[in-house]
Amino acid sequence: MMNGKQYIDSLKARKPRVYYLGERLRDPYSHPAIIPHMRTAAVTYDLAMEDRHAEIMTATSHLTGEKVSRFTHLFWSVDDLIKKIEMLRLIGRETGTCFQRCVGLDGINAIWSVTYEIDRAKGTEYHAKFRKYLERLQKEDLMSAGAMTDVKGDRSLPPWQQPDPDMYVRIVERRPDGIVIRGAKTHITGAVNSHEILVMPTLGLPPEGADYAVVCAVPIDAPGLTLVFGRQTNDERKEEEGMFDCGTSFGVVGGESTLLFEDVFVPSERVFMAGEGEFAGSLVDRFSSWHRANYGGCKAGNADILLGATALLTEIHGTIKNSIVKDKLTEIVHLVETIYASAVGSSALGTKLPAGNWMVDPLLANTVKQNVTRFLYQVGRLAHDLGGGILSTLPSDADFRNGEIGGLLTKYFAGKEGFPTEEKRKLCRYIENMTSVATLVEALHGAGSPQAQRIVMLRQANLPEKTRMAKKVIGIGKE
Amino acid sequence: MMNGKQYIDSLKARKPRVYYLGERLRDPYSHPAIIPHMRTAAVTYDLAMEDRHAEIMTATSHLTGEKVSRFTHLFWSVDDLIKKIEMLRLIGRETGTCFQRCVGLDGINAIWSVTYEIDRAKGTEYHAKFRKYLERLQKEDLMSAGAMTDVKGDRSLPPWQQPDPDMYVRIVERRPDGIVIRGAKTHITGAVNSHEILVMPTLGLPPEGADYAVVCAVPIDAPGLTLVFGRQTNDERKEEEGMFDCGTSFGVVGGESTLLFEDVFVPSERVFMAGEGEFAGSLVDRFSSWHRANYGGCKAGNADILLGATALLTEIHGTIKNSIVKDKLTEIVHLVETIYASAVGSSALGTKLPAGNWMVDPLLANTVKQNVTRFLYQVGRLAHDLGGGILSTLPSDADFRNGEIGGLLTKYFAGKEGFPTEEKRKLCRYIENMTSVATLVEALHGAGSPQAQRIVMLRQANLPEKTRMAKKVIGIGKE
Amino acid sequence: MMNGKQYIDSLKARKPRVYYLGERLRDPYSHPAIIPHMRTAAVTYDLAMEDRHAEIMTATSHLTGEKVSRFTHLFWSVDDLIKKIEMLRLIGRETGTCFQRCVGLDGINAIWSVTYEIDRAKGTEYHAKFRKYLERLQKEDLMSAGAMTDVKGDRSLPPWQQPDPDMYVRIVERRPDGIVIRGAKTHITGAVNSHEILVMPTLGLPPEGADYAVVCAVPIDAPGLTLVFGRQTNDERKEEEGMFDCGTSFGVVGGESTLLFEDVFVPSERVFMAGEGEFAGSLVDRFSSWHRANYGGCKAGNADILLGATALLTEIHGTIKNSIVKDKLTEIVHLVETIYASAVGSSALGTKLPAGNWMVDPLLANTVKQNVTRFLYQVGRLAHDLGGGILSTLPSDADFRNGEIGGLLTKYFAGKEGFPTEEKRKLCRYIENMTSVATLVEALHGAGSPQAQRIVMLRQANLPEKTRMAKKVIGIGKE
Amino acid sequence: MMNGKQYIDSLKARKPRVYYLGERLRDPYSHPAIIPHMRTAAVTYDLAMEDRHAEIMTATSHLTGEKVSRFTHLFWSVDDLIKKIEMLRLIGRETGTCFQRCVGLDGINAIWSVTYEIDRAKGTEYHAKFRKYLERLQKEDLMSAGAMTDVKGDRSLPPWQQPDPDMYVRIVERRPDGIVIRGAKTHITGAVNSHEILVMPTLGLPPEGADYAVVCAVPIDAPGLTLVFGRQTNDERKEEEGMFDCGTSFGVVGGESTLLFEDVFVPSERVFMAGEGEFAGSLVDRFSSWHRANYGGCKAGNADILLGATALLTEIHGTIKNSIVKDKLTEIVHLVETIYASAVGSSALGTKLPAGNWMVDPLLANTVKQNVTRFLYQVGRLAHDLGGGILSTLPSDADFRNGEIGGLLTKYFAGKEGFPTEEKRKLCRYIENMTSVATLVEALHGAGSPQAQRIVMLRQANLPEKTRMAKKVIGIGKE
Repeated sequence: MMNGKQYIDSLKARKPRVYYLGERLRDPYSHPAIIPHMRTAAVTYDLAMEDRHAEIMTATSHLTGEKVSRFTHLFWSVDDLIKKIEMLRLIGRETGTCFQRCVGLDGINAIWSVTYEIDRAKGTEYHAKFRKYLERLQKEDLMSAGAMTDVKGDRSLPPWQQPDPDMYVRIVERRPDGIVIRGAKTHITGAVNSHEILVMPTLGLPPEGADYAVVCAVPIDAPGLTLVFGRQTNDERKEEEGMFDCGTSFGVVGGESTLLFEDVFVPSERVFMAGEGEFAGSLVDRFSSWHRANYGGCKAGNADILLGATALLTEIHGTIKNSIVKDKLTEIVHLVETIYASAVGSSALGTKLPAGNWMVDPLLANTVKQNVTRFLYQVGRLAHDLGGGILSTLPSDADFRNGEIGGLLTKYFAGKEGFPTEEKRKLCRYIENMTSVATLVEALHGAGSPQAQRIVMLRQANLPEKTRMAKKVIGIGKE
Repeated sequence: MMNGKQYIDSLKARKPRVYYLGERLRDPYSHPAIIPHMRTAAVTYDLAMEDRHAEIMTATSHLTGEKVSRFTHLFWSVDDLIKKIEMLRLIGRETGTCFQRCVGLDGINAIWSVTYEIDRAKGTEYHAKFRKYLERLQKEDLMSAGAMTDVKGDRSLPPWQQPDPDMYVRIVERRPDGIVIRGAKTHITGAVNSHEILVMPTLGLPPEGADYAVVCAVPIDAPGLTLVFGRQTNDERKEEEGMFDCGTSFGVVGGESTLLFEDVFVPSERVFMAGEGEFAGSLVDRFSSWHRANYGGCKAGNADILLGATALLTEIHGTIKNSIVKDKLTEIVHLVETIYASAVGSSALGTKLPAGNWMVDPLLANTVKQNVTRFLYQVGRLAHDLGGGILSTLPSDADFRNGEIGGLLTKYFAGKEGFPTEEKRKLCRYIENMTSVATLVEALHGAGSPQAQRIVMLRQANLPEKTRMAKKVIGIGKE
Repeated sequence: MMNGKQYIDSLKARKPRVYYLGERLRDPYSHPAIIPHMRTAAVTYDLAMEDRHAEIMTATSHLTGEKVSRFTHLFWSVDDLIKKIEMLRLIGRETGTCFQRCVGLDGINAIWSVTYEIDRAKGTEYHAKFRKYLERLQKEDLMSAGAMTDVKGDRSLPPWQQPDPDMYVRIVERRPDGIVIRGAKTHITGAVNSHEILVMPTLGLPPEGADYAVVCAVPIDAPGLTLVFGRQTNDERKEEEGMFDCGTSFGVVGGESTLLFEDVFVPSERVFMAGEGEFAGSLVDRFSSWHRANYGGCKAGNADILLGATALLTEIHGTIKNSIVKDKLTEIVHLVETIYASAVGSSALGTKLPAGNWMVDPLLANTVKQNVTRFLYQVGRLAHDLGGGILSTLPSDADFRNGEIGGLLTKYFAGKEGFPTEEKRKLCRYIENMTSVATLVEALHGAGSPQAQRIVMLRQANLPEKTRMAKKVIGIGKE
Repeated sequence: MMNGKQYIDSLKARKPRVYYLGERLRDPYSHPAIIPHMRTAAVTYDLAMEDRHAEIMTATSHLTGEKVSRFTHLFWSVDDLIKKIEMLRLIGRETGTCFQRCVGLDGINAIWSVTYEIDRAKGTEYHAKFRKYLERLQKEDLMSAGAMTDVKGDRSLPPWQQPDPDMYVRIVERRPDGIVIRGAKTHITGAVNSHEILVMPTLGLPPEGADYAVVCAVPIDAPGLTLVFGRQTNDERKEEEGMFDCGTSFGVVGGESTLLFEDVFVPSERVFMAGEGEFAGSLVDRFSSWHRANYGGCKAGNADILLGATALLTEIHGTIKNSIVKDKLTEIVHLVETIYASAVGSSALGTKLPAGNWMVDPLLANTVKQNVTRFLYQVGRLAHDLGGGILSTLPSDADFRNGEIGGLLTKYFAGKEGFPTEEKRKLCRYIENMTSVATLVEALHGAGSPQAQRIVMLRQANLPEKTRMAKKVIGIGKE
């Protein structure tokens, strides 16, 4: 297992093609826009080194018997599922933002289980190949990004009916030694600072969409792969002296990129699905169920920091003793613990998949994410309410550093005695950035948009069975 | 263990003093107002007889090694906590209403753990006495009601400062062989059809309130105890032919009573706290945490039936294929599964108490109940929305049975072909009654009012720790 | 103009055929189920007699120049529209419940405007006939019920494709001197104690549905008309001594009936549409826009009483000084004033119709009702929250009157010193009944179900125009 | 009256001391950070020139009989109050953002009415001085900023008990010819591009706070006045080529500044309150009531553009035909029209003040703003939901302009055929920026924080009167 520094060094050995703000980044891992995200992911490595977190952050591989990072570990029990949620909350608290690495974790679990089933049904050998790949991932403690979301073009049309057939990543050539893929994946969290990209389809596919049913692993610096680092709220502040107005040195959200695959060749040993579209739906459902439950862990951890920051800010404002203020802080607690409790609940009722790893309860997992899409807006609003108009109008750090007016600004933006103005400002900036559009939209659409969860919920709810039970209780009809 | 019939017979052997609608009920267990509630509680006995439910409905007593109803079983593990939630959902689905018996279950767990701690601290012998009492409860499979809520008088004053000192149940006399208690407990679920009443204080008590710190067990027909069966929404419909307009033969809510203790003597072996007010707070907190988590089980089960009924009604209305209608049904699913997931989550993170039984996570358990106080109103509104104005204006069953107009009414209240009007009416009546004030208020105030949960949440949230974490992440101050 | 007593006497001169709880009411206007609603409607007559309310309660007829009740007055100006809202809030406060009479008021305005347009388009003479009819209504100060909602059968089918063609009221025979109608109208507010029934279609109708396009006025005791008085929450309490547990002597909701038209003959001078289905949509839209705005008046008035009752109850509980309690009372204020403000706003932006009377802004009027369907549930929940569990479990008045236990109950249900227990009970009963299913469902579905409002809103919102404006502001495309 | 160009020229003749991002702006009116806001305010001038908007945008001065901009016009009638709301919605639609100028408008109305009352009570001559000042404002068509919010320091302490007495603007010297003021005002909308600053106190003041009771007018370039232009979400994008990623050329929010008054001398003729603290509360209440109602106009106009942009984006995504998508668009409509309807309603029930101008209904006006603080977050969330993850991760415009990858990005971010990718991107950027923290916080705290409205609501609600009415209806107590 690597520590944070080793992780960063390992990245620097790679040479991906990355663009940002109209330019190719010659050295992405030294660029101020990328560093905060890399620094955040590094925390997942450093914490795994600490003894006091060992039970949460590490596990014993069932493949090799070695101690591995929990981020490369398959879920072998309910306990693993619950520990994952606890790990996510822990790191969420240590970083106060998205640490990106859980996407790959859910990805390997999804691929593990689905390749097993494909092989069993079709006599393919995907599972053995993936096992080998996974062993290397565990051993080298690599970070993998999960690349699922396609750009989708006209959403009223399926992939194969789009005017441009490339709107979903697809196999454009099948060779004896591998496949060639083309298309783009977007909103890919942590991609730039991952070692590996796990390409997965974004929806179930009928036979006519077989070319879109592709699962494979691509190194970050594979020829033909270009990453365009997305623009984020206030991203240019990262390039300012001291990054003071960013509020956090860890970056907001997960450093999402768009990945352009310009006929990328993937050798056979890295291909784990290539046309078996009837299994794509299962892969998406499982991945997304695990991933949706996660949001009750990481977002709760992030919200803990937001809550702490907001509480401290009200102390500085001199308002924290007001009953209504305390009640609003309590409401944040309530919302946050609801998503956490549900995430744990969906894990506690997990079931074993044929391949041996464990699945969260999909119905419950989807409620977690659905609530996240609502509650984080409410949490944001409460933080804004308690934080005040200053969240919107605070002068820049540069103004506070200005020799002519800095002193006056420091005087006038003071709060309760004993708290430096600088701390008040920093809290405001943290709240501002962690409730920005980038953050809120990530909470809303990450791991699937609200409507995607509702589709699963309705399917999983088994209305006919509930109707049958109702008829029995009420005493009508033949059951 | 008893079955439902045996349970009912065992009640009939008792002669409690019960009033209802201004009259003393000579034979309460044959009265139409009481029967539905007794019938519901009987389901908790009958289901325990069924093999397919044995794992959920029964357990092995740690006291005696015997198989006992889970309703008399201490929580000896996380698994017991989760199974309890599953049991509550199961029975919630089988009855579609409150089955009352979980109050006593949480009561015995609270008394078990607190008597242990009192004895350890003060050298008393409550725990041994309670163990003996509990063994009998298990062996005879008795139903116990938990009587916690006092009438409270002027809530701005503590018990001992009330103009009338009886506004909270108190010890008015201490004798060598026992105590004499006076006062009233109100909103007591299932009391009339319980064998035993577990009296518990409603709040923590300082030394000046020592007389109010009383825990004891009183038989339902103890001299000096009078039960006044509360009025419920539409209660008189229970006395109508066929109870058609009740919608359910199981009664809505839990048949709550007010209990008047007119200097009731309780012999020593049935007294488990008598003045140790410093332990009263723990007892209340534990009882209420367990009990608040329950609502994610039983109310989810009830809501399953409400959902099934509503879905079937939309089918009869011919509206179920509408996307918006389906989305509203999905919203019910979402709300219901959120409370269930959280209840399981609060159980999965349980911890062991000194006396050996297990405690749910109190912070998470309180979020469950807080959400119930909100979500069930939303569920009710959605059911009303989909059910239509007919929920408010449907003519009585007697009109449908009337020779002159019954035929016309049946003609005009028909829905989609193939569904008898009678089924449509019955569904409407079920929804009407299960979303009535009695039901909603029970969801709101049962196991503690919303503000009670918020007080616990704020206390459990540990804001100073969250502030410390925020300072670390944001990089301000000395941690 | 009549006063309340004269109104009641005028009803007693009529002999409608009314059923309730399975029996024909020989003397409906002396029946305890009917009296409360009749008594409420009488307030609309009595208040019009009071000088201090003259400006609000009365108006000068544009037809005759006489002073008339505002309930028979056409809306001749924005001021009339606003005064209507003020009148509704006033009476809502004086009665604390639905006073029924606004349905007829909106009905006559709708018929006035649409008959004018039919005549202009088709050369018919409906408008002149209706003018004559309306003059009589004004002169005799009659109360008219608006009967719009059909029973609808299978809602996925239009009227003319229902297996039973009678599921919407229709013309079954056209005679030289009138028409014969058949079918049923349901949820008809105030019908039993109205003098006249205004029959109106429930939806727009294409040519194939022409027989369903019928507007006419039917006397309450017309041969062939049967009224079945709907069952309401707790309706049997009205027959109890003193009606104490009803909480109000005015009845909850509007005393809704189902009207069975068994081939009722309507003479020509009372027929105002008979086949002109292309005008039915306008009639429904106008009626419902006016009527939806009303809910911001009457429900605000009712909620004022609910608020006052709840505030007083918290005073008796001793909780009113708590900041959180005050904040919850404030939330009720906020919700109530929002619907009132919007109702006034939709009136203030009214526009003149071709027939001379004034139309509310339909988009704004629909938002009023949409909010009512949400806010009243929230108001109910807040009242429940502040009122406490007693709303669900309070013993009956008969128990309090019982010689053996009444004294004890009075002792134990006391609140703050100085407030009689009886007042506390009465407040609880009022809150209980005014937040019952009957009331909530009426707020939800009265004047049209939530989805009906959304259909109008989307149609009225003119999205293409908003898209055009957005393109201009954002600077894209050709506008 | 000036047109937009004349307005901008008039600003350029002034030389205020403005800082931004750590530097003094030598020529603020040519700086890219300031221009968008100035450009927006200019629209208020240009629209007033258009004949078709004359009735809305202009009025006849009651002081001079001249035609003036409605932004310098006193509210002389209910019609003026309603026209103001209509004007705000109109300009809100033309700019899609905050146009700043309404603060001064409400300020002059507040000062007009309060100076009248001070003079009447105390024999001062403020009103005549203000009349003269206002005549000049009307004649020269000047833009005035309202500067009310102080920096407040420790909010648990009143101004005169703050450790630093300057935390609220105060009079530090009274001279025969004027006063000297010191302190800071913050969140001041449109200040940099206003001609005049209207200084007003932020709260009611008892005698010991008399020095804080100061109302006066200060020219933007008065000696001793420094403006620090606040940092906004994504503000640096304004300095990018083409401002593409700003989404709008009009700026988001109102260009708020912090104003530092370093012993600014204000001559007597510009002083309108100097110590009469007993009138400060009225001034604040009136100003804020008018101003809170405004938000139902301008924010509705802005939201119209957001709605149009979102609807168009769903068309490009190919999702607009989905029922659920349409329902979400409808929900935006509903929320927006609710605040508009309420704003009109609060205006329609306006009353005349002693000084002759008209006051909105304060209770209703406060509900408008309270809803804005909630609804705009909901609108934002709906726009995010429909817009998709692209709102958070879209690459920069510079990337799209890059020769190597721009073509590919344009290919992959295409939507439905026929819509240029550029339009899709621009829509995303508009939505992103108009739902940013800067915007949301402005909606939340502008014109007063949520709790400020609740305080007014509870005071205005007259609970004792409602309790009295409830007692009458319910029949308890002596009224």
